[in-house]
Amino acid sequence: MSVLSEVLAANEVYSASFGDKANLPMPPKRRFAILTCMDARLDPAKFAGLAEGDAHVIRNAGGRASDDAIRSLVISYKLLGTREWFVIHHTDCGMETFTNEIIRNLLANSLETAKFDGQNWHDVGRGPGSRAGEYMEFLTINNLEQSVIDDVERIRSHPLVPNNIAIYGFIYDVKNGRLIEVPEANRIGRATT
Amino acid sequence: MSVLSEVLAANEVYSASFGDKANLPMPPKRRFAILTCMDARLDPAKFAGLAEGDAHVIRNAGGRASDDAIRSLVISYKLLGTREWFVIHHTDCGMETFTNEIIRNLLANSLETAKFDGQNWHDVGRGPGSRAGEYMEFLTINNLEQSVIDDVERIRSHPLVPNNIAIYGFIYDVKNGRLIEVPEANRIGRATT
Repeated sequence: MSVLSEVLAANEVYSASFGDKANLPMPPKRRFAILTCMDARLDPAKFAGLAEGDAHVIRNAGGRASDDAIRSLVISYKLLGTREWFVIHHTDCGMETFTNEIIRNLLANSLETAKFDGQNWHDVGRGPGSRAGEYMEFLTINNLEQSVIDDVERIRSHPLVPNNIAIYGFIYDVKNGRLIEVPEANRIGRATT
Repeated sequence: MSVLSEVLAANEVYSASFGDKANLPMPPKRRFAILTCMDARLDPAKFAGLAEGDAHVIRNAGGRASDDAIRSLVISYKLLGTREWFVIHHTDCGMETFTNEIIRNLLANSLETAKFDGQNWHDVGRGPGSRAGEYMEFLTINNLEQSVIDDVERIRSHPLVPNNIAIYGFIYDVKNGRLIEVPEANRIGRATT
């Protein structure tokens, strides 16, 4: 079965027992948001205990506080009332394995999937590639704890983010599913009035 | 119990029975990615049938093909091998209820949460606000089907996106949990070699 058929079949099953989820209101019931990585191993609803309707979930490569993540967080509190935000990066993140220069060179070489040998990325594809990567900032991660601190700090100091929203910084461990606090991030992210 | 305590307690439970998820590799096993909205009512793992390790999930306000979502998708295929992408917007989306002008004015008035009367947003907060919203494009949605088509088209025509990746466009119905195809988006998004 193709991925498309599989997804639609799973969706049939889910919607068949949708029940009273039809009545959930738009604003998140538990008034919080999670910003985390797109990584396939992470299921925020499971690792943080969310039911449908509970919380906003924002995800991108790395779980970074990009302009777009901040756009989403601003809409999250200003229109939909969230009061606490979690920034959650994770161990063994792909964003730690490359730099802007590395991915730009790979993309310039070809648009096929590169291979990782545990140390370096190698392009095994044939061209044509594209130099459009030169115009993209990939927001790679050099140090996991620092990236959480940086992102909490970036959100905390944004002029559209009110001081009374609490921002928490965590690292999710893909080896055991545990959330590990980043104390310095939590210090920076604490709410004041 | 506070939200923070609740999340950490739920995480304890999850990690206590983590099992063989510890051995999941970084690349998504089923080689696809979902781009969808941060809306609290949506659980992509549930509505599309994902287990941990299966697929990348990218989420932002609206599920829009922002520059940041495209950054994530480029990393998703170039380094981690995804071959099919779903763009999924949804009914009753908050992004349909306002415009850049409306949210910019609300933010300029105060950084407190606004109220929606079913037709219009009203700012009930006291200042100070911030005019920094003038520099933010909120990517609001005027027509749901068109926003899916526009986003698939934007991804399809991006120079860093190869022609042989299939892009599907869907609308998730929050009243019954069903994925509704957007045929025109699927036509634009189809893979060629």
